[in-house]
Amino acid sequence: MAEAVRHDKTARQLRLLSDALDSGRLGPVKRLVNTLSPAEIGNLLESLPHGKRVVVWGLVDPEDDGEVLVHVGDEVRESLLADMDPDEIVAAVEDLDIDDLADLVEDLPGTVIDEVLKSMDRDNRERLEQVLSYPEDTAGRLMNPDVVTVRADTTVDVVLRYLRLRGELPEHTDYLYVVSRRHQYLGRIGLAQLLTHEAGTPINQLIDSEQPAFDVDESAAEVARQFSDHDWLSAPVVDDNHVLLGRITVDDVVDIIREQAEHQALSAAGLDEDEDLFSPARRAFRRRLVWLGINLATAFIAAGVIGRFEAAIEEIVALAILMPIVAGMGGNAGTQVLALMIRGLALGQIGGSNVRILLRKELGVALINGLALGIGLGLIVLLWFRDPMLSLVIGTALTINLLTAAAGGVLVPLTLKRLGFDPALAGGVVLTTLTDVMGFLGFLGLATLILLR
Amino acid sequence: MAEAVRHDKTARQLRLLSDALDSGRLGPVKRLVNTLSPAEIGNLLESLPHGKRVVVWGLVDPEDDGEVLVHVGDEVRESLLADMDPDEIVAAVEDLDIDDLADLVEDLPGTVIDEVLKSMDRDNRERLEQVLSYPEDTAGRLMNPDVVTVRADTTVDVVLRYLRLRGELPEHTDYLYVVSRRHQYLGRIGLAQLLTHEAGTPINQLIDSEQPAFDVDESAAEVARQFSDHDWLSAPVVDDNHVLLGRITVDDVVDIIREQAEHQALSAAGLDEDEDLFSPARRAFRRRLVWLGINLATAFIAAGVIGRFEAAIEEIVALAILMPIVAGMGGNAGTQVLALMIRGLALGQIGGSNVRILLRKELGVALINGLALGIGLGLIVLLWFRDPMLSLVIGTALTINLLTAAAGGVLVPLTLKRLGFDPALAGGVVLTTLTDVMGFLGFLGLATLILLR
Repeated sequence: MAEAVRHDKTARQLRLLSDALDSGRLGPVKRLVNTLSPAEIGNLLESLPHGKRVVVWGLVDPEDDGEVLVHVGDEVRESLLADMDPDEIVAAVEDLDIDDLADLVEDLPGTVIDEVLKSMDRDNRERLEQVLSYPEDTAGRLMNPDVVTVRADTTVDVVLRYLRLRGELPEHTDYLYVVSRRHQYLGRIGLAQLLTHEAGTPINQLIDSEQPAFDVDESAAEVARQFSDHDWLSAPVVDDNHVLLGRITVDDVVDIIREQAEHQALSAAGLDEDEDLFSPARRAFRRRLVWLGINLATAFIAAGVIGRFEAAIEEIVALAILMPIVAGMGGNAGTQVLALMIRGLALGQIGGSNVRILLRKELGVALINGLALGIGLGLIVLLWFRDPMLSLVIGTALTINLLTAAAGGVLVPLTLKRLGFDPALAGGVVLTTLTDVMGFLGFLGLATLILLR
Repeated sequence: MAEAVRHDKTARQLRLLSDALDSGRLGPVKRLVNTLSPAEIGNLLESLPHGKRVVVWGLVDPEDDGEVLVHVGDEVRESLLADMDPDEIVAAVEDLDIDDLADLVEDLPGTVIDEVLKSMDRDNRERLEQVLSYPEDTAGRLMNPDVVTVRADTTVDVVLRYLRLRGELPEHTDYLYVVSRRHQYLGRIGLAQLLTHEAGTPINQLIDSEQPAFDVDESAAEVARQFSDHDWLSAPVVDDNHVLLGRITVDDVVDIIREQAEHQALSAAGLDEDEDLFSPARRAFRRRLVWLGINLATAFIAAGVIGRFEAAIEEIVALAILMPIVAGMGGNAGTQVLALMIRGLALGQIGGSNVRILLRKELGVALINGLALGIGLGLIVLLWFRDPMLSLVIGTALTINLLTAAAGGVLVPLTLKRLGFDPALAGGVVLTTLTDVMGFLGFLGLATLILLR
């Protein structure tokens, strides 16, 4: 419901824009596009097929080009960059914040990077090179080195005078950082503190030393967790010697959280979060083919199991009609457990100590569900095929497969994780292979034992 | 990989805590728990089975009780509240911020709510009642009414004097709001501005009137979108007459984004984002039964299709062995398209104008994939069953089902949305029913036409 609202707003802009584009008069399109924020323009570009995307991209105010590039996925970004000449790219990105620029730099052509570096002053160049020296997905890459620092052995009025001299503060500055003579991080002072205390108050009385600093090597995921757990708006980043290197602000954390969520949602279907909705068919096809190929291989495992029971199926064709039900229900039940496990693992809520309890709970749920659904399924099958033993077989097989699904739902993601695979990516394939095999094997095996003797 | 780090940290705490709990000495447990932030304690409680959860909850510093309650899911919160007596609950929640309290209030027993209201001063009681008067998931519910306002017809030094008199500012205050005599929102002034301008500067020279205000009825999802698109840290909320009611800060937006992501991930498996990992089996069972029951019903639709082809299967048992492959591959391919569509719909990237292009692209991808995989599958089947016509039938049936999956993947979520259903919740069931039916119907139907004449 809430989602619908969001959809409606952007979709309305999209419709307006599309109508204007179709009419061929680009004036209105340009006016419309340039009322939007760079993120909104990025979102709009992602929702346009290639032809229209190029036209609209040409109409974006060059001043916004850099910010828009920051806000689109890797694949769309490539398609936009392909449409610009080197000078345009340099002009677009040279005024970006260091952290945004660092984010882009790997997608830029080498000659452009050199140009951009040349166009920067030495200070900024050194800062960019420093940020780029840290691996992706670490605090070092997320931080902005542009911070305002003060010393502890001074007073409020001195700081106020310094700030007035300095003029504008970096965007989203809510705290000044207090550092030692060797630029080590000691604590922070809120702008609010400076405003609400008398001029003569010594700074060291106002220092908040509770705010911990991130190590520059800290993972982006851990940074995001701490920001969201502690409701921080910004946090300092330090090196091994506790020297202050920069600060991370919550707006970048919001981006990380969004990306994590997209990754989780799309990787279950074997897709990448940078996938372009309108990527050319031949490109999309290749990526999907790999995933479908893996699934085809696992489908043959299940088919092989069925093949073992040719004789039984030849004798009782009802087995062929009913066997997908048993296999499919196992897949559905297993997917539920898997979804809970993947969330629990992502939140760090599942450790060695509670796995056994979780497994016992899930097996309990599966047993009750298996009995309830097994009896229901048995009754329907009895009405359909008028064969009480067939009913017994399918009810039992369903219960066995739901128990398999529960055990697999808990243990497959844990095992994958231990082996270094991403459970969100591979969990579904492995688990449904398991429930397919067990569904066919249990049902056809029991039928062979009980019905065919 | 990054996720693993997060997992490891929390899992380590969990292991330590579990060991300490098992040893029965509660002193170390208490010390350990109370080094954590309320959000971390909440996360830890969620990862404990009921028995241990109650023990640890009893050890949490009563001062943190309220914040912890804010940070856990609905179901876990209920289990924690059930363990407290009314006095404890009142003590825990009475010091919470108004927006957090409003978040909790619906889970509290009626008598407790009365007590809490009685314990508040009149100002705060009125503010709480005001916030509660707005529907859930709107800006009105998210806002905190505690804001600092100034008038436009004054100067920096007057404001500074006022702030010093006022003392502490509300948490996360980065801007003061400028209001008219009738308390209408006119714009904002950054604390940084106040610090970097001379004492005599008139306030109306510093007003930033670019920051728009949210309407109090705006949906939480739209609030989250705008915060993340514009990199805001806070934004004002106004009523129909543009009277300032409060402000929303980004930390609450982070929570919304996390909840949206969990909702999307879990609803695909028919689960609720408030599901407790350790909810009692009889409770979890009931909720899952509904979902599995729906899936059972759809499985019978597919079984009914197979039943129509009894004669064909009796004659050629290989059909029974191979038919799940065709159905399953359609499900896999459809799920990929569905995942992209659900993301696109959530981001508002899919509107009437680009659906046709999207459909054409997905049909193109499906056709190439269908031909590639169809030929591959046909060859394997040829080697297995040595029947060229059977190979032709399965290859063709697979291509048809991948095309069905592509069309369904695009059109099913759009149709569900238009009908007012949540595509993330219902899309998978509807789509796999479609691909199952089409998989069995296409394969068995073609086989009947071509192989059995």
